[in-house]
Order: sequence, then C-alpha cells, then structure tokens
Amino acid sequence: MPNTRTETDSFGPIQVPADAYWGAQTERSIGNFPFGPREQMPIEIVHALGFIKQAAARVNARVAGLDVQIAEAIQQAAAEVARGDLDRQFPLVVWQTGSGTQSNMNANEVIAGRANEILTGKRGGKDPVHPNDHVNKSQSSNDSFPTAMHIAAARAVHYRLLPSLKSMHTRLADQAKRWDSIVKIGRTHLQDATPLTLGQEFSGYAAQVEDCIARVEGTMPRLMRLAQGGTAVGTGLNAPKDFAEDFAREVANLTRLPFTSAPNKFAEMGAHDTMVELSGVLNVIAVALSKIANDIRLLGSGPRCGLGELKLPENEPGSSIMPGKVNPTQAEMLTMVAAQVMGNHMAVTVGGLQGHMELNVFKPLIGANVVRSINLLSVGMESFTTRMLDGTEPDEQRIGDLMNRSLMLVTALAPEIGYDNAATIAKHAHKKGLTLKEAGLELGLVDEATFDRVVKPETMIGR
Amino acid sequence: MPNTRTETDSFGPIQVPADAYWGAQTERSIGNFPFGPREQMPIEIVHALGFIKQAAARVNARVAGLDVQIAEAIQQAAAEVARGDLDRQFPLVVWQTGSGTQSNMNANEVIAGRANEILTGKRGGKDPVHPNDHVNKSQSSNDSFPTAMHIAAARAVHYRLLPSLKSMHTRLADQAKRWDSIVKIGRTHLQDATPLTLGQEFSGYAAQVEDCIARVEGTMPRLMRLAQGGTAVGTGLNAPKDFAEDFAREVANLTRLPFTSAPNKFAEMGAHDTMVELSGVLNVIAVALSKIANDIRLLGSGPRCGLGELKLPENEPGSSIMPGKVNPTQAEMLTMVAAQVMGNHMAVTVGGLQGHMELNVFKPLIGANVVRSINLLSVGMESFTTRMLDGTEPDEQRIGDLMNRSLMLVTALAPEIGYDNAATIAKHAHKKGLTLKEAGLELGLVDEATFDRVVKPETMIGR
Amino acid sequence: MPNTRTETDSFGPIQVPADAYWGAQTERSIGNFPFGPREQMPIEIVHALGFIKQAAARVNARVAGLDVQIAEAIQQAAAEVARGDLDRQFPLVVWQTGSGTQSNMNANEVIAGRANEILTGKRGGKDPVHPNDHVNKSQSSNDSFPTAMHIAAARAVHYRLLPSLKSMHTRLADQAKRWDSIVKIGRTHLQDATPLTLGQEFSGYAAQVEDCIARVEGTMPRLMRLAQGGTAVGTGLNAPKDFAEDFAREVANLTRLPFTSAPNKFAEMGAHDTMVELSGVLNVIAVALSKIANDIRLLGSGPRCGLGELKLPENEPGSSIMPGKVNPTQAEMLTMVAAQVMGNHMAVTVGGLQGHMELNVFKPLIGANVVRSINLLSVGMESFTTRMLDGTEPDEQRIGDLMNRSLMLVTALAPEIGYDNAATIAKHAHKKGLTLKEAGLELGLVDEATFDRVVKPETMIGR
Amino acid sequence: MPNTRTETDSFGPIQVPADAYWGAQTERSIGNFPFGPREQMPIEIVHALGFIKQAAARVNARVAGLDVQIAEAIQQAAAEVARGDLDRQFPLVVWQTGSGTQSNMNANEVIAGRANEILTGKRGGKDPVHPNDHVNKSQSSNDSFPTAMHIAAARAVHYRLLPSLKSMHTRLADQAKRWDSIVKIGRTHLQDATPLTLGQEFSGYAAQVEDCIARVEGTMPRLMRLAQGGTAVGTGLNAPKDFAEDFAREVANLTRLPFTSAPNKFAEMGAHDTMVELSGVLNVIAVALSKIANDIRLLGSGPRCGLGELKLPENEPGSSIMPGKVNPTQAEMLTMVAAQVMGNHMAVTVGGLQGHMELNVFKPLIGANVVRSINLLSVGMESFTTRMLDGTEPDEQRIGDLMNRSLMLVTALAPEIGYDNAATIAKHAHKKGLTLKEAGLELGLVDEATFDRVVKPETMIGR
Repeated sequence: MPNTRTETDSFGPIQVPADAYWGAQTERSIGNFPFGPREQMPIEIVHALGFIKQAAARVNARVAGLDVQIAEAIQQAAAEVARGDLDRQFPLVVWQTGSGTQSNMNANEVIAGRANEILTGKRGGKDPVHPNDHVNKSQSSNDSFPTAMHIAAARAVHYRLLPSLKSMHTRLADQAKRWDSIVKIGRTHLQDATPLTLGQEFSGYAAQVEDCIARVEGTMPRLMRLAQGGTAVGTGLNAPKDFAEDFAREVANLTRLPFTSAPNKFAEMGAHDTMVELSGVLNVIAVALSKIANDIRLLGSGPRCGLGELKLPENEPGSSIMPGKVNPTQAEMLTMVAAQVMGNHMAVTVGGLQGHMELNVFKPLIGANVVRSINLLSVGMESFTTRMLDGTEPDEQRIGDLMNRSLMLVTALAPEIGYDNAATIAKHAHKKGLTLKEAGLELGLVDEATFDRVVKPETMIGR
Repeated sequence: MPNTRTETDSFGPIQVPADAYWGAQTERSIGNFPFGPREQMPIEIVHALGFIKQAAARVNARVAGLDVQIAEAIQQAAAEVARGDLDRQFPLVVWQTGSGTQSNMNANEVIAGRANEILTGKRGGKDPVHPNDHVNKSQSSNDSFPTAMHIAAARAVHYRLLPSLKSMHTRLADQAKRWDSIVKIGRTHLQDATPLTLGQEFSGYAAQVEDCIARVEGTMPRLMRLAQGGTAVGTGLNAPKDFAEDFAREVANLTRLPFTSAPNKFAEMGAHDTMVELSGVLNVIAVALSKIANDIRLLGSGPRCGLGELKLPENEPGSSIMPGKVNPTQAEMLTMVAAQVMGNHMAVTVGGLQGHMELNVFKPLIGANVVRSINLLSVGMESFTTRMLDGTEPDEQRIGDLMNRSLMLVTALAPEIGYDNAATIAKHAHKKGLTLKEAGLELGLVDEATFDRVVKPETMIGR
Repeated sequence: MPNTRTETDSFGPIQVPADAYWGAQTERSIGNFPFGPREQMPIEIVHALGFIKQAAARVNARVAGLDVQIAEAIQQAAAEVARGDLDRQFPLVVWQTGSGTQSNMNANEVIAGRANEILTGKRGGKDPVHPNDHVNKSQSSNDSFPTAMHIAAARAVHYRLLPSLKSMHTRLADQAKRWDSIVKIGRTHLQDATPLTLGQEFSGYAAQVEDCIARVEGTMPRLMRLAQGGTAVGTGLNAPKDFAEDFAREVANLTRLPFTSAPNKFAEMGAHDTMVELSGVLNVIAVALSKIANDIRLLGSGPRCGLGELKLPENEPGSSIMPGKVNPTQAEMLTMVAAQVMGNHMAVTVGGLQGHMELNVFKPLIGANVVRSINLLSVGMESFTTRMLDGTEPDEQRIGDLMNRSLMLVTALAPEIGYDNAATIAKHAHKKGLTLKEAGLELGLVDEATFDRVVKPETMIGR
Repeated sequence: MPNTRTETDSFGPIQVPADAYWGAQTERSIGNFPFGPREQMPIEIVHALGFIKQAAARVNARVAGLDVQIAEAIQQAAAEVARGDLDRQFPLVVWQTGSGTQSNMNANEVIAGRANEILTGKRGGKDPVHPNDHVNKSQSSNDSFPTAMHIAAARAVHYRLLPSLKSMHTRLADQAKRWDSIVKIGRTHLQDATPLTLGQEFSGYAAQVEDCIARVEGTMPRLMRLAQGGTAVGTGLNAPKDFAEDFAREVANLTRLPFTSAPNKFAEMGAHDTMVELSGVLNVIAVALSKIANDIRLLGSGPRCGLGELKLPENEPGSSIMPGKVNPTQAEMLTMVAAQVMGNHMAVTVGGLQGHMELNVFKPLIGANVVRSINLLSVGMESFTTRMLDGTEPDEQRIGDLMNRSLMLVTALAPEIGYDNAATIAKHAHKKGLTLKEAGLELGLVDEATFDRVVKPETMIGR
C-alpha cells in the first residue's frame, strides 16, 4: 500500500500522506510554514471551525440548494471535528497566511475528505464532496475564520474562564467571612499603617475578582457577534439572503451559546477590536491576579525571617540544594501566567492595529493569543484556588504580635489631640524604642485614660 | 516685603514663596522631586481634588462637627481650585510619592492657605484652618487621591472623550450614507478582491467607533465608584459613619455626574483595576483609530503613484524640500497619538500590577497616563474629524477605473462554473494581460451571456 | 508487569510511570501544574540542562570528590539529554515554580534514573546515583536554571538566529545590487516624492538587517556569562572553590561556544537584565522585519488595483472563495511573528522587573519567551527569504509608468527657481491635470531648456 | 503697534503674533494641532535643530554657494536656538506631521526671522534670509528631523543618563564594600534561604547598574550616525557632494560628541531601529531600577511590622492622616518612572514598526518618548541616589536577629549528612518550633560537634 496519494488544487498536484484526510492546500501550508508542532493553531479554533461547517451545511441544504446527502455527510464529518475526534488531522501552525485561510481550508479539506470516505469509502479527494464548492459553500475564510475566533473565545470564556473566576471568588469571599474577626496590622507603602481585619483584606481580593467577572460579561454582547455571512469582503457575495442570521441561529443551537449575526460585517473582518477588548479584560484579570498572588506571597514570607502572617500549603520540595525549603510555587505560577497574558495582550494589540482595508491579516495571531491567555488564566486560577488558597491559614499569634507593635495606632489619637501632636508621639516612640503609650505619657501629650479609651485596634477597623 | 514666609510640618520649619498659598509639605516635595514643570501632575486631577475638598467640607460640617465658618471658607477656596482659578498653586510633579499624598497635601495646604486668607486676610499657615485637621478631615490621601483619579477620568470621559467619539461617529456614518452607491474594488491582504461600495467601507469605520462608545460606557459603572470614606487602609478609621455615601452624593451634585461610593474600599485603594480596564478600552480606541486613519491614508495615497481613491484635504505645506507636496498629516497625528495611548496603557498595566497590601503606590503614574490618553484621543479625534474627514472626497473616476480592472470579479462566476474553473480563468487573464471575459471565452469555460449576466460589480455588493 | 513504580522525596512516596526515568518531584509537578503538553518547557532549555549536568559531573569528579564511576554514568546520561535522546522524559510545563527548580529536578531525576539503569540495569531511583547529592552536586536550581537559560538562548542565537539574519542580509544586499539601476518613484508619507532606485530601497532593508546582526552580537559578551557556581543565593555555598570557572570552561568545550563565569552571581540570579536586553534586541529585529515585510507587501499590492511595482511569488492558492487569488502570505506570517515577539518582549519585561532579593522567580517565563522569540524569528526569516525574497521580481514597466507621472520631480527645480515658484508649478499641474513641464511653461516660471536639463529622474538619485 | 504681522507660504498669507520670530507654517501648525502647551515638542529636539542649522549654514557657505553674510546671520541665530535663548519661539506640539516637518520649519522660520532681524532690524519674513532656500538649504525635514532625534538623544545620554548611572553605580559599589562584613539572611522566593552579606547583596545591584552603562555605550556607535545628507528620500537630491560628511564633522565640533554620517541614509529615514534599540536599553535600565528599588523598599519595610533590615532616610511626612508615618517615597518615584519608561518603550516600538517606504512618519512620537525616558531615568536615579541611597543604613541588630533564626542554615549540613536527612531536620524544627541544632540532635541525624563545626553563617558566604 502506498504511503501517499495525490491531491490537487489550482496550483497542481501534490502528494499527501495516505492516511490523512486533508488535501493539497493543507499539504502546501505544511511545507510553506515549517514552524513545527509546538506552534500549532489552538485546537479550540479547529473545533470552532467544526461547528461552523456543520451549521453552514444545514443552512446550505435548506436555502442554498446543497444536495441533502452531501449536506448530511458534511455535518457528520464536521461534528467529528467539533468534538475533537479528528484533532490529529490539523497540523497547521499559527504562522501562516494572516487570514487563516489555510486553517479554514484544512477544515474544508478534512471534512470533505472524511465526508467522501463516509459516502464512498475512499478517504480524501473532492468528489462527491468538494472542499470549496460544498463544505465552504456560502462562506469565505475571511468570514469563517473570524467567526471561529469568536466561537473559540466565547466557548473558552464560558466553559473555562468564568467558572474559574467564580470558584476563585467563592473561595476568597468565604475566607473574607471566615477571617473577619482577625485584627491585623495594615500596610501602606509597605510600611506599618492602621489596622484592619484579615477578612477585610481578603474581601478586597474577592471584590477584585468579582469585578473581573462583570468585566468579562460586559464584553459578551460584542463577542457573541459573528462575521459569518460577510464572505470575501463583508458584502455577502455568493451567500444567500439571510444566510448570516440562519447560520448564527444554528451555531447557537449547536454550542448552546447565544451567538448572533454581527450587524456590520465590514468592521468584523477589517478589524478585531472586540478581540482586543477581550484581551484588555484578560489583561485586567492578570493585573488583579498579580496583586492578589503577590500579597499572599508577601504575607506568607518566612517562615522565620519574613512577615509570616499566613501559613501557605506545602505542595512539593522547594529547593534542589536547601533541604526542607517550601516555596509559594502556585503564586509564582500565577504571576508568571499573568505576565504572559500581558505580553499576549501586547501581541494582540499590535496585530489589531494593523488591519488594511477589508481585511485584518493578523487573525491567527490574535485568535491564538486570546485563546491561550484564557486557557492560561483558567488553569492558573483553578490551580491557585485549590492548591494555594484552600490550604492557606492565618498564623494568628504572629498576626497579633505584629499588630500590637505598630506605631500607626497613633492615628486614632489625631482627632483627639491633633495631627501634629500625634506625629510627635509616634516619632518619639520610634526614636526611643518606646510603646506609643509610653511615648505619649512621657511627652505629656495624652493622658492614660484617653489613650486607653481611644487606641484600641479592634475599634479602629470601621465597624 | 520679604520674598518668603516660614511654614512648618512635622519635619520642622521651611521657607515658602511669600505669594504661594501652599505650605511646608508642598515645598518639600518641590525640593525632593526635581523633575521640572514639564512633568507636572495633570491639572484635571488638581481640579478633582478641589471638588473633593469642597464636598468633604460640606459633609464634615454636617456630620463631623467641623466649624461652620471654617467649612464655608474651605468650600469657597476649594471651589476656586475646582474651577481652575488656582492652577499655578499646584507645582508638584507626577513623580512623587506613589500614594499621591503630596498632591493631596498640596490641595490641603493651598485650600487652608486660601481659606485663612479669606478669614484673616493673611495668606497661608494652619490657623484658623489647618490643612490636615480641617481640610483633610475624615480623609486620607489613600482614599482622596484615588477618588481624584476617578473623578478626573470620569469628567474627561464625559466632557471630552465621548463627545469626540460621537462627532467622529456621526461624520463617518454620514459619509457611509452619502457614498453608498459608489462601487469600488475591495482589497484583502492588500490584494484586489471583490467589490463593495465606499459607503460600506465607511460603515465599517462608523461601526468601529460606535462600538468604542459602548465600550467606554460599559466601564462607567465601575469608574463612578469612589474610594473616599476608606481613609488610611480602607476601614474608614476617623471618618464618621455614612461619610462615604454622603460624600459621593455631594460630589455627584457638584460635578453633575452620578458618582457612588465604592462597595469595597480595600479593593479601590490596594489596586486600580478599573483604571487598567479603562486604559484597556482607550487601547481599543487607539487600535480602531489606527486602522481607520491608516486606511484613509492608504486610500488617499498618491496623488499620481498611489491608490488615489480619496482626495484628502490640504491643510498645510507638506515638505520643506519638495515644493507643492501635501501630506495626510492628520492621519499621522492620529496614529502617533494612538501609539502613545498604547504605550501609556502598558505603563498603567505595569503600575496596576504592583500594588502591595492595602495600597497601590503607582497612583500618580496611573492617573496621569489615563488622563493624558483621554486628552490625546479626544483632541486627536476632534481634529481628525474636522480637519481630515470633513474635507475628504472620493475620486469617483479613479475608483471606477480601478474597479473595472480587477480580476476578482471572477468570484461571481464560481457558483456557476465551480471554483476550480473560475480560478483557471483568473490566472489565465493575469498571465496574458487579458480581461476576465476575454480569458473566459478564450478558454471556453464560460459563455458570453452567462458572463454578462453574472459578472456585474453593482450586483456583487450584497444588496 | 506493573504500570508504575514508587519513588520518594522529602514529601513521601509517589507512583510514577514504570517506563519513566523521572522521580518523585517531577511527578508532583505534573500533578500540581496541569497545563498540558502545549505548555511544555522549551526543549532547548532541557538540552541546556543536559550540558550543565554533564559539565558539572566532570568538575565534580575532578575537584569535589564525586565517585568516578558515578560521574561517568551521569555524564553519559546527561549527554543523552543534551543531544535530545530523552526529550519525552521532560513533561513539565513552563508554569511551575518561578525558579525552574522542578525542571532542574526533572533533569536531575532523569539523569540519575538513567545513570542508575546504566549502572544497575534498573531504571529510576536514587541509588547508587542520587539526583540531588550526585547529579545536582555543587549546584542549586537557582544557579543551574539561569545557566540553562543563557546556554539555550546563546545556542539558539548562534545556530539559528544569526544564520537566518545573515542569509536574509545576503539576499537583500544582492537584490540591492541587482536592481541598482531601476529608477522608481520615492514615497514619503505614502505620498509621491522624489525618485530613487529600487536597489537603493533594498539597500535600506539590507542595512537594517546588517545593523540587527551587530545588535545581537553586541549582547553576546553578557549572554555568555553563566550564573553557575552561585548555588543557592549567589555565594557559592556547597560548591568547591573555582567550581564556577571550571564549569564554564567545560560547558564552553561541550557547546563550542565561549561561555564564561559571570563576575557577579548575585546579579545573575536576582535579576535577568541580560535576557531582557536580548529580548529588546529581538524586539528591534521584529520592528525591522515588520517594516521590510510591510513595504514589500505594499509594493506588491495589486495585481491591478494596487502599487504593483513588485511581482511576488505565488506559493499557494490565496482564497477559499475568490478563485485565482494569490496573497503575500510570507509577509503576513513574518509580521505576525514580529507582533508575537513584541508581545513576548513585554512578558519578559514584566517578568524581569519583579525579582525579589536573591532570586527572580519568573525564570521559566523569561527563558521560554526568549527562546520562542528566537525560534519564531529564525524560522520566519528563513522562510521569508527563500519563499518570498527569492521569488520577488520588479515589474519594470509599471515602475517606469508611475515614476514618470510624479509631480515631485519638481523638487529638482527648487534650487534653480526657488521653493515657492516650484511649489506653484506643482500645485498648478495637480489642479489642472497637467504634466510638470506643461504647468511650468504655462505659468512662465521656467523655460523649456532649463526644465529639460534639470528634471531628469536618472540624475536625481544621488549619484 | 499692531499685534500681528502677515507671513506667507504656498498656502497664502496668515497672521502671526508681531513679537514671534516664526512664520506661516509654524502658525498653521498651531492652528491645526490644538493639543496645547503640555504636549510641546521636547526642547532638547529644538536645541538639536539649532545645532543642525548652524552646522548646515557653515557647510552651505563653504560648498553650496550660500551667501556669506546670510550664512553668518543664520549661524548666529541658530546658535541662539541651540543654547536655549529662543525656547519660547517653539510652541509646536509632538502631535503634528509624522515627519517633524513642522518643527523643522519652525526652526527654519525662527532662524530666518531672527537672521532677518540681525541683518535688517526687522523681525520675521523671508528676506533676505529665506527659511527654505537658505536656512533649510541642502536639507529636508526628512533628514533633518531624524538627525535632530539622534543629536538630542545622544546629548541626553552623554550629559544626563551616563552621569546619573555612574553616580548611582559608585554609591552602590561603595555600599557593597562598606557593608561587606554584615552577614544576613538570604531570601529566595521571598522565603528564608542561606546567608550572604549585605555587601554581597548590594554588589549585585552595583553590577546591574554597571552592566547598564555598558549596554548604553554599546548603542552609541549607531546612535552617533546622522541621517543628514539624505534630503527628501535618502538619495541626497539637492545637497552637494560630501555635504553629509562635512555636516557630521561640523556637528561633532559644535556638540563635542563624535557624530558621523550614516552609511545608509535610506535605512535611517525609513525606519528608526536605533531609537527602538536605545529605547530597549532604557527599558532594561527601568527593569534593573525596579528590582533595586523594590528590594530596598522591602528591606526597609516596617518600622516594626516588616523586614526592617534597612533604615531608610526620612525626607518628608508620609501621610495626611497617619501622624509620624515615613514612606520610601524615592523608591516609589523610581518605580513609577520605570513603569513610564516601559510604556514609552512600547510607544516607540509601535511607532518604529510602522514606517512606510522612504519615511517612517512616527518621528516626533519616537523622539519625544526616547528623550523623555532619558530625562525621567536621569533625574530619577540622581534623586534616588542622593535622597535614598545616601541616607540608607543597615539595622545590624535586626539583621543579626533574623539571620540566626533561619532554618536554611541546614543547607550547610547537606554535604555531610545528605540532602534527605538535612530536609528532615529542617522540617522537624519548623514543625516543632525548635532550633536546627535541637532538631538535629533530637532526631539523631547529626552530632553536636559536627553541627557546630559546619553550621556557621559566617563561613557560608563563599569566602
């Protein structure tokens, strides 16, 4: 049995592996863009193309005269792509044509090749099912690929990002409640400040994550809009009337997400502002996670020479040379992930700004970075929640020790004796190594009764 | 008359210019951060501090026992700051303490110094009005400065950004309508593609700008939230109960914008996620404007050796050496502005991610960049709209000439004769320098009647 | 035969796959950081760890009392890692501990596991060869991993980046020479300007690439410095005297690249400024390539409705809907790659700025992005050179047609008749659709003889 | 006396302020780009244009037939611009045409206007000295403005950046020496690690700054290259033979810096890779400064609830609400400055990548950001050195207390008793709150003599 078979396109014949479903254009792309398997198009975009071809075949059979048997075979093959059965048939890399045409053709060819196998027993080829004339019917790469970008991103947001944001939020809100009575020193400028509770501190983190959920949801109306139906330049040439709307309905059914047809196709193909917007929201999430993870890392620094207010879980040995060392590895992972998301955001921005006329040709770059950022954040938060937050406990004794030492409790005196007198007390205590009370009495700027009445950390926390 | 007077703070006495309203802490900051006048804190943040001090004095008089006469004087002085009468009293630079404390103290000192002048005829000092005990009463820099950031940004969005987005959108939508019957060549990959109308092309730009308006408005609920009331670390120590809510109501009255009290003060002071979010939206606007300005620059390239489809207005001589040269300078200005906004966004992101515990100490950086980006985009769009879009006209003859040459009209044949045959015709025409019709007939792949029926640009635009 | 065996570390026993060489710590990392195979540590860093362990074993045997037989086995196993024979034994992802400890332990464990197999026939375990006590002897992850980052980056620069820069430069310089007599219109502001030759235009691209080579070479002295020998915090605790220098010599021998021991180990472990620097140079390359690829895409725009000065090679069908369309896909690939490199640069910058005390814990992020950027640029340039530049040819007729139409040839008149008169001629010609000569004569601002003597494109190109 | 006078250009007459030296084109730019005084072109670029016009007049008089008297007047006027006497005559903003033509014309007009005043007593106008025909003779904005960018950047590097880097380095190196015997706990992952000396820690910072000096110097060969002589598109049209080289020599004389003529003018005008490169080096400096300032802020955290190893100088009151609070404000300033430089770097990158053909039209953006970044870093480092580093002192008692508590001293035992046994001791001590020695003896894993011999911090620091 031969190892290859011949496939053809408008450039002529070419050999493809005998067991591949793909055709000539996929094979050419493999040869023309030799970046190797580490740089493959995200599989989520491939799956989205599966949904697209499935939905298009349905609409084409109904309104564009596509032969019913052919349409059925396309749908069956496309469904296999959508659910991941044919992942190994998608070898193309991100770094190809900027329209994603080659990945669209990869999908067209694999689906035609598989549909032909279903109908004739023979894998590949263009007959009876043709990749362009049938699978790609009423479509162009120029509308299919951005549609795939939106579907892939929306599914990743819905099934991965929002759930991981929500579990992280639940955990933080829970800790905020659980630790609400633990009074601790506040820190501003990394310097001792007035007290708050550990629960209040964590309520801030919970609020940050909650706002991120709202931000993500705020982009959804625009992300749910699909370019499909615009075909080559946005006009819908070669697509039947109402194809766009029918298609969006089918995709919504298949994915169970409320996709709609974009009101202006020219904007969706010539630019990817909504992907840049979503990337900007991912950037905010990355910023928020950096702050939270950094704080927890700082509060857990030690065990003996740091702040030591939190006891972090031990997940693995921390050092190849220092025996017994344990490190905040989940925080490190999360802050690295955040840095990558910020970098990806810049790549998306640079790609987004360079559209020309009817087509932005940085589509694979933009799609790949947004999907990767969502995945990194989702797995990162999920892991951080279960492997870091879950196991974190306050060291109440250490928290109490530090809090009682602080000079900034003097702030409570300011409304009684004035800012300037209070400052004098704090500076005196600092210089002489005294407690605040000792300093205040020594200077005669406050009496003992007033001091004891006013300087009580547990009443300084805004309740 | 002496040139200076003595002011004091907890560090001791210091000389300030006799005509200055400010006090010791402002003077120290001038000395400690010698970046010079080009790096001053944006005046919009100073004005916002004016509103804050005015509103705080009202609430303090009502619920915190602030002497009524003092409160009146503070309000009067603060109103002068808010409306820009005392701009020259704010010499401090962005690059100071990361909490903005020094700018907050600048406002406290100037307002106290002016209020004292109102009450006693003597400028400056701390008596009867004290910068900390009275002007800053119930406040900390840690809540006042982020409140000023939000007020300044929200006012700039409301009074500058949204109006300029809206006039640009109106103009583009108008052009989309006006030019809706001008059929022209589409371009994808910068290569000739199927036709569309010039109006459709501009409808895409209009849609991009329209979406940007929605994006900006989507961030408003979070931007309207004020940190005020959190005082030093978010707990509200030294502020009366309900101060936060009363304050927000007063600011809303003064500014006529619907500000609210932030539900979680810890998150608003320890992080600035909402400013990062807004910056991300400004980044999308910058990306959209880059695309639009680039397209118009490309379509107006020429006058004789470029695409030449648009005639751009001539605003000034274009070259110091090439006589008669006219350049798309407004597009150049707008794309430079866009690049700066992208850079500012990165600065905001880097600042936003580095909060520590109860305080993010990159506040002046973040506030200054967001305000600057809003101003740059607003002036840029306003100028581009009136000086570029207003004067742009299509060169209909050139548009028609180019359109009729295109080989991509062959796309209309694909549903009739198949993709592969159509491709053969286009390639043959390209190679031999023929028209499509000549090529199709010569190859025998299409008959004249079919060609004439199908290949009509005016029917290829999706109507 | 069982599918797993038991391995142990200081956290206790754990099951690992029976056919794996790795041990407990690798297995824990797989479980603790579930990002999956698409996020694996770049294999170049794994290979670098192979070189490191090989070199360390040699030095340890010589000066640190490592048993000779053990040292031999380690060297053999490490060499297998270095040359890629054991790639599948390195499943760990980038998103792990920020010190790269787990990848260092992965190397230690695989090499111990393989060395034990060599010595005893039994795969895995810690006896007779122990991952920490023997393979990691005189080392810490904290010095080994940054050493691996430098070795991986330096090898990628040497074997991939510089060769691809050099072939691209050779090609461009060759074209500059070949096309040196083709006079064409210059374009500034995308508007017609004075002429130059196509060869001069390409000489600019060649010069850009040449400068990039110099920039890369300029970073080499710092990139060749290795942190190894600093062990845990930079002091070299537990490493013998002169280990650092001996080690660098061994690595230089093994890799045939002139590595040296870093003069200050604290700086190399607590920060990664040199990696940020190299990333900055990769960013310049990305910027230069964007400019070059964009120009070629613009010059090749058409075929009938664009500038059309260059005929670009046809590598594949360009459109799934527009038959016969050919696109500048290599330029699109290269500009997308460039955008990614800029994004990676931001990720590296954000990681680089966040070191704490003795250790920057964004090492895997930084290493992975730098290596990926080098690979993307290298493959991208190689492909662009062979698949785009090689096949590009000027369309001399089109070039000549455009050049002769230009109004900016008027510039040559300015020194004769003054800037203002020359401007009047150009504007008149533009307004009336005249040639320059017609306009000049009509206005009486120049006589025919002067015009014919001065306005000659072939003398306006600086020769 | 009238407030205005009439000036003209090829667009016709326009009123300019009577006391202005500038002419019609400057006035038009004021009207066309209404960004206001806060957005003015950096004055360093204006000064550079002064040097350029001065040098060009000399060469023009010598080799291009420029009237000697006119040349003298131009030189005198240009020297006034170069040394800052006419700064107020340069009102134009950064956001103008992307070639900087308007700033170049501003210089041409002001110098002509002043030269005319010198020669005739009448300010302004074009006679006898014409802005284009005389001041701009042998030049174009397209070569003058990038020349001004390089001159401005090189002077700022030479007179500001390098000196501030060098004083910071000197101070850090001095502290490294001074504190070389203070043994302290090391921290990796923000967790306790093995000891080092405070001097070693600071030697790392010193080494980082030293490398930054080398990086800056490495870019100088390319930064010293001037585009002047390329005129409109790089060919040198309208400039005499050897103008470029003569000009570079004159500028070198005037500025006392070794400027040269760029070997390829096309590359210098169509792209600004060297400015992007320099910006990348500024980005590395920003990264290094962030690390250093962050460490010092962390080490100085407290005074009672932080690490407290360093006592930072007190420069001003730290809080408007917390009396006596002192904050690391210089570190906050420096890290904010660093974030801005990173943002500026992105703006420069985005501008750098978008050149088209013979001209990159993001010149003012690029020039302004590079000059601003240099200024921010220079002032920032100078201030940080004198106001932070100078006053910083170690708290030796605190340093000693922390060091003696650390469990990571166990690392010294690993070579004696093995990594696994040492880990067991550390974990036991941590769990039971014991000292290492107590834990080791209790577990019987080490004897007292061995422990005392091996676990000595002062021998664990690599001496």
